[in-house]
Amino acid sequence: MTTASTSPFFSTPEMDRIFSLQSQLSRMTRFEWALTWALESAGLAGAGAAAAMEPLVDADFIDVPSLLDEARQSGNLAIPFVRQLTAKVREQNEAAAASVHLGATSQDALDTALVLQTREALALILSRVEELEPLLVEQARMHAGTVMAGRTWLQNGPPTTLGLKIAGWIAALRRHRQRLGAAGERAVVLQFGGAVGTLAALGEKGAEVSTSLAGKLDLREPDLPWHTHRDNLVEVAAALGMLIGSLGKMARDVALLMQSEVGEVSEAAGEGRGGSSTMPHKSNPVACAAIVAAATRAPGLVVTLLSAMVQEHERGLGNWQAEWETYPEIFRLADAALKQMIGIARGMRVFPERMAANLEANGGLAMAEAVSVALAARIGRERAHELVRTASKRALSENRRLGEILIATPEVRAHLSEAEIDGLLDPRLYRGGAHRFIERVVGGVDAAR
Amino acid sequence: MTTASTSPFFSTPEMDRIFSLQSQLSRMTRFEWALTWALESAGLAGAGAAAAMEPLVDADFIDVPSLLDEARQSGNLAIPFVRQLTAKVREQNEAAAASVHLGATSQDALDTALVLQTREALALILSRVEELEPLLVEQARMHAGTVMAGRTWLQNGPPTTLGLKIAGWIAALRRHRQRLGAAGERAVVLQFGGAVGTLAALGEKGAEVSTSLAGKLDLREPDLPWHTHRDNLVEVAAALGMLIGSLGKMARDVALLMQSEVGEVSEAAGEGRGGSSTMPHKSNPVACAAIVAAATRAPGLVVTLLSAMVQEHERGLGNWQAEWETYPEIFRLADAALKQMIGIARGMRVFPERMAANLEANGGLAMAEAVSVALAARIGRERAHELVRTASKRALSENRRLGEILIATPEVRAHLSEAEIDGLLDPRLYRGGAHRFIERVVGGVDAAR
Amino acid sequence: MTTASTSPFFSTPEMDRIFSLQSQLSRMTRFEWALTWALESAGLAGAGAAAAMEPLVDADFIDVPSLLDEARQSGNLAIPFVRQLTAKVREQNEAAAASVHLGATSQDALDTALVLQTREALALILSRVEELEPLLVEQARMHAGTVMAGRTWLQNGPPTTLGLKIAGWIAALRRHRQRLGAAGERAVVLQFGGAVGTLAALGEKGAEVSTSLAGKLDLREPDLPWHTHRDNLVEVAAALGMLIGSLGKMARDVALLMQSEVGEVSEAAGEGRGGSSTMPHKSNPVACAAIVAAATRAPGLVVTLLSAMVQEHERGLGNWQAEWETYPEIFRLADAALKQMIGIARGMRVFPERMAANLEANGGLAMAEAVSVALAARIGRERAHELVRTASKRALSENRRLGEILIATPEVRAHLSEAEIDGLLDPRLYRGGAHRFIERVVGGVDAAR
Amino acid sequence: MTTASTSPFFSTPEMDRIFSLQSQLSRMTRFEWALTWALESAGLAGAGAAAAMEPLVDADFIDVPSLLDEARQSGNLAIPFVRQLTAKVREQNEAAAASVHLGATSQDALDTALVLQTREALALILSRVEELEPLLVEQARMHAGTVMAGRTWLQNGPPTTLGLKIAGWIAALRRHRQRLGAAGERAVVLQFGGAVGTLAALGEKGAEVSTSLAGKLDLREPDLPWHTHRDNLVEVAAALGMLIGSLGKMARDVALLMQSEVGEVSEAAGEGRGGSSTMPHKSNPVACAAIVAAATRAPGLVVTLLSAMVQEHERGLGNWQAEWETYPEIFRLADAALKQMIGIARGMRVFPERMAANLEANGGLAMAEAVSVALAARIGRERAHELVRTASKRALSENRRLGEILIATPEVRAHLSEAEIDGLLDPRLYRGGAHRFIERVVGGVDAAR
Repeated sequence: MTTASTSPFFSTPEMDRIFSLQSQLSRMTRFEWALTWALESAGLAGAGAAAAMEPLVDADFIDVPSLLDEARQSGNLAIPFVRQLTAKVREQNEAAAASVHLGATSQDALDTALVLQTREALALILSRVEELEPLLVEQARMHAGTVMAGRTWLQNGPPTTLGLKIAGWIAALRRHRQRLGAAGERAVVLQFGGAVGTLAALGEKGAEVSTSLAGKLDLREPDLPWHTHRDNLVEVAAALGMLIGSLGKMARDVALLMQSEVGEVSEAAGEGRGGSSTMPHKSNPVACAAIVAAATRAPGLVVTLLSAMVQEHERGLGNWQAEWETYPEIFRLADAALKQMIGIARGMRVFPERMAANLEANGGLAMAEAVSVALAARIGRERAHELVRTASKRALSENRRLGEILIATPEVRAHLSEAEIDGLLDPRLYRGGAHRFIERVVGGVDAAR
Repeated sequence: MTTASTSPFFSTPEMDRIFSLQSQLSRMTRFEWALTWALESAGLAGAGAAAAMEPLVDADFIDVPSLLDEARQSGNLAIPFVRQLTAKVREQNEAAAASVHLGATSQDALDTALVLQTREALALILSRVEELEPLLVEQARMHAGTVMAGRTWLQNGPPTTLGLKIAGWIAALRRHRQRLGAAGERAVVLQFGGAVGTLAALGEKGAEVSTSLAGKLDLREPDLPWHTHRDNLVEVAAALGMLIGSLGKMARDVALLMQSEVGEVSEAAGEGRGGSSTMPHKSNPVACAAIVAAATRAPGLVVTLLSAMVQEHERGLGNWQAEWETYPEIFRLADAALKQMIGIARGMRVFPERMAANLEANGGLAMAEAVSVALAARIGRERAHELVRTASKRALSENRRLGEILIATPEVRAHLSEAEIDGLLDPRLYRGGAHRFIERVVGGVDAAR
Repeated sequence: MTTASTSPFFSTPEMDRIFSLQSQLSRMTRFEWALTWALESAGLAGAGAAAAMEPLVDADFIDVPSLLDEARQSGNLAIPFVRQLTAKVREQNEAAAASVHLGATSQDALDTALVLQTREALALILSRVEELEPLLVEQARMHAGTVMAGRTWLQNGPPTTLGLKIAGWIAALRRHRQRLGAAGERAVVLQFGGAVGTLAALGEKGAEVSTSLAGKLDLREPDLPWHTHRDNLVEVAAALGMLIGSLGKMARDVALLMQSEVGEVSEAAGEGRGGSSTMPHKSNPVACAAIVAAATRAPGLVVTLLSAMVQEHERGLGNWQAEWETYPEIFRLADAALKQMIGIARGMRVFPERMAANLEANGGLAMAEAVSVALAARIGRERAHELVRTASKRALSENRRLGEILIATPEVRAHLSEAEIDGLLDPRLYRGGAHRFIERVVGGVDAAR
Repeated sequence: MTTASTSPFFSTPEMDRIFSLQSQLSRMTRFEWALTWALESAGLAGAGAAAAMEPLVDADFIDVPSLLDEARQSGNLAIPFVRQLTAKVREQNEAAAASVHLGATSQDALDTALVLQTREALALILSRVEELEPLLVEQARMHAGTVMAGRTWLQNGPPTTLGLKIAGWIAALRRHRQRLGAAGERAVVLQFGGAVGTLAALGEKGAEVSTSLAGKLDLREPDLPWHTHRDNLVEVAAALGMLIGSLGKMARDVALLMQSEVGEVSEAAGEGRGGSSTMPHKSNPVACAAIVAAATRAPGLVVTLLSAMVQEHERGLGNWQAEWETYPEIFRLADAALKQMIGIARGMRVFPERMAANLEANGGLAMAEAVSVALAARIGRERAHELVRTASKRALSENRRLGEILIATPEVRAHLSEAEIDGLLDPRLYRGGAHRFIERVVGGVDAAR
């Protein structure tokens, strides 16, 4: 539980709904209802037992305060939940009460509810990814030819294009989509094993009940229960953590480009958005901050789930419980970060003239590599490197343009004409495979060229 | 934000109250009120400005839904908060509105509120520690002579006493109290720097206002603002993380002693406490599970705060925000774990006869060291070790008692009489400095002996 | 770097070799050689340039001390490496020196070398998994009918079988194999982008050179360079972290079963293995400790890599470097843990009589659920639960057998005969779907039954 | 263990020496020698036993390869170490061999050696802090009046001074020194408890031996052994982690100020330092990268130690072992980061004219707050904020200077003259308490003003 105050920043209403207590209880009831149906099919519950439970699947009947109070004593939510459910069923159908929860253990209901929530939550995440991707694709295409400084170690280097930078984001996003798909495929699976994973309380009929229970919930049935094997859930969380990491990278790129001195890209500004309580002219990168905050928090959540994998025997002590608040939190952060990134992708403002100016700054030193490479073909990489390095240092110390110095350097001029040097120093001409790389990722660039 | 369902397990009502939104807003209002008071004293706010704000310090006037809505846009809670506060003050005193928040920045209000919450929260934590400690001291004294197997690598070794085990817990608890005290000392300090930490908006009077503001809130004034130096808060969190780690160690000890085959110690059982939804006879170590869960989660929270320390320039981007939900969470876990441990310490049941039986099991092998040491004084450590090792293996493989084998071993009997061997194998006599160690920690043991 | 003293515990010679400095340098040289070959094919390097480099691919020519010394200054290994390589090539072929490293940046060489190491390291890991799995399959089959207490919350519950426990381990292992396969598929991919990822130094020929370079190294070519998109590497690390987590779970299970009072399973003992310096009879679970240690350490390494994903622009500052020692460390821990688990699986000793005895302990309470379920079919789950709970408590407090109490309880006897109660209390008959679950995972069980 | 290649970046020779295997073995030998001396004093070892061991304290006699080989089997280093030591002592004095390691357990020797290493390592760290601090103090004094943009959310705000920024670093550094001192005070303490912490093997004389052993090693004696209470070590590690976090903040500040477009501060450049393999003119912030890398890695190490605190009973399984490589690693990172920061502090180049130019950029918007505050005193904070915000937006969109717009705004001019507006927009005059804050931290500023 946290200060509600900050939740708008770190979650979305849609994800909050999926992981609300009401949603959890409703999915637990669906599990119990499907179980009763399966028991009934196998002759282990009286006719009409499932029908008696069906009206309850919204879980509106639960007395939440007393549930939470009992949960504190019993150590989990399922025990008082089953008690309340049984009482409610009895009201409707005395006989049906006898088969409520039959064969199942608390964790069966809690885990299967979690799996059902995971299915919905992953669908939400993937729908956001699908909303974000085309926005980025559009930006990448639009800025395939928008030349800007490439930056390494936070220092300006030779040019790249904004389109290539964004294409890199897109490629990462697609890999995350693959990972999330595969993780969901593995994780969305029934949990049903009874007290110690043998379904012994159902005698010979355990496997039959398990299969029809899975079918009723439209879940895959695993080979065996996985109460203390949490790798599937951790995989989902780790995939979300990686997604958030990539979003953090995008946000930091944007925030760095939005610095006052750089001014190349900016988040959309809106009324009341990113204002400062003291600095009236400021427009803060609020969306970037929210995403970077998510990227700062997600690793700590993943580490908790990884640490919690060492669960004892048939059901663990304390490590399972450590997942309860941690796992949904990663979904919340991921959804919030995606939503913020969608806002950035949609409203991003780009300032090509600042990009050009920044490339030109420092006397055109960003283009030093181009000359170095051209010279290397004539005089070897090392000598070329040496010559250009010396010229670069002179340009810096004498505050002159690199081109001027190079043109005045006899050993350079012995191999390159003034026009050649000028051409080499034009950033628009020094983009190598950038265009092709963008084309590979987003297509439709070459045509638009 | 989390599934409310699990919060009873991972927090306490008292700590929830301290870190509630209402509490945060009320402390922010106190900051603003004290600031207005200080401004008024310095002649920077009109007479009566502070008086106009005083009735508002409960922050009841806040329209919370609209506050949260605006916070999502502006990136933090303080901006809409100041807007609402200013409007409210204006209703009371038009002139006073002009000086609301004067000189301060959002983070000044948020951080000082956090510091005020920290002061209360640490007091709560320390009061729990002070409740827990005498309970443990009593147990340590009571069980100073309760002999049980010492266990290393989860294998039984020579005897120790339950009192010594608990004395170890107490000593750790006291170190944590020292750490929390020192951390609180450093952390409970005013935050007041304005936009970039210079208090420039107050001109020459910044320092004067800062000093009287600190005084009004009964906070220490730091040498300079610390907006992007978060070490004091991280220290508090790390100290709580360590405390939780030690509580986790205690809880795991208890849970291991409570295993069916061991049965030496047990959590208090209560009606509805630790029951199983499928196993009617079971009594689960619910308090232990809650504590171990806290100990599994706390490291991930500390790691987030440590990672978030790299905050840029005068105020950071995203890393500060990463603290918002994380920092209070550690307090919640710590308080919940302490409360559970108090329950354990108060109701702990001890089964000395099981301890004795477990020590006797395996043919008395636990006492092998005693014989080995006694022999070593005569024939050297290595030969003694060898002889006893061989005897131990025979005892195991032939399922006989170690004493029997030793008495039948001529080389042993050459140095030790049968009575001596019997004496050496009596665990009650083989406790070395245990008593003295307990005495050092809890006192009053020797007298009670 | 670490205390060499502990490395035998946390790595294997095979993995140490793959991630040795020599191996890294050799793979960097292979990258440079393949690059030269691709440049030569594209007409960007003189004929014979690749041939001149080919004899150097073992990297034996490197002067390691001076390399490390320069690396400290330049910030990475590749700069002095390229310098030494160029000098060496020049000795052989003056002209060839001009094209060494042409178009590439340091990170291209370092990352591609890392990818080549990853390919080998994953192959090693998977070969260990393939060694471990059949050993576990054999144990699962052999112990499909070995009845033992199921344990939840570290408390004994109804019976399970050792075979089912191990089948759970196997199922997890197979999921990890899938994950590692998919992660490797994505991660084993060329890195080649030049200074800022555009390959601009190669002009029009960048893409052509990239494709043939990838081919020469038998690596997949990515759509575009990924210098600051580290998700593929993090995925590998996270998959290893999850594998280690599951191994940790297995090891903790074994260590708990090996406790003196439990004594159901034991690591192989060997000469000098797991001995204690003070307790001659002890045999410590050394392999379990090594695995649990790995499982305690791996999450901290994964968290570092996740945190380091937020890499700036075209190449990051500090976060890339944070991967250097962290990424190989996870491979080392994984390989060490697998090797230890192979040892456990191969030499594991099982004590069925202790399992039976532990199930029988506590007056047969472990079987309470069976009676409860049988009664529930007659009198409803809640009343049955109540009756058995009361009987269980009496059995405990009066230190009598549960069967005895039940037989003496009229309401029970009204529904169950003495023989029926005896049958219900026989753990061998209460295994539900255990056999079928094992069969699904390992096959060949039913036949052997 | 890691790729040696990267160690120059992440450690120092001095710290490597302290945590080398040889150093560890030598400190273990010192422990054994001091123990023998204490035993001899207590009459538990023959006369001359300590003298026989004294020549061995360098541990040169150890056959390291066989030691490591045995360690892999026995699970720790101490067992084969004691074996080799005993053999060596026997060569010198047959009788003395009998008392080697008497009463101690492996962990006593390993932990006390670690404590001795900790004492040296903390001294090294503190000596670096003491080297760094005056360098920073000098910079803070020198730049007390060097005006630069304050930056929040990576956006330029009103001015601060470089001196104030550095004073913030210094204040943090001093808090870390306090913490490290307190942590060292608690952690540098003898470990001596024997097999299960009772010193039973020494009978009545355990406490006496313990006290003289501690005295001989000049260590504080704890109330009782702390084999499974690791909080003192975790505190040291957490304090180092916090120190590294603060160094990371400093390094990121410098790296951001060193960006091409900002250019306000730069690391010292040196021959071969920070060069690029492809960009001849570049000078990378190598020291910053090393420090940020350390700050990215340290949290993952602290999290491991925190997780490992839950150690079972008298000695833990696997969690203790998880500390072995992790704990020294934090010292290495801390020392490397400090050394790099010393380099930065010593050679830092500052470009005040760039600072001034960056403040002037954006038409002087950075000074908007000053006008806003001045107006607020006349027309209320909200109206003033509104007026200045509008003027700022116009300045941006019309690309004019803020002063120009304000002077042309009647409502502004109604309250402020042109000269007043000019004065308000002069950053050198808008520094509030900056000077006083610096003076508090470093002193000597006011005099030098």
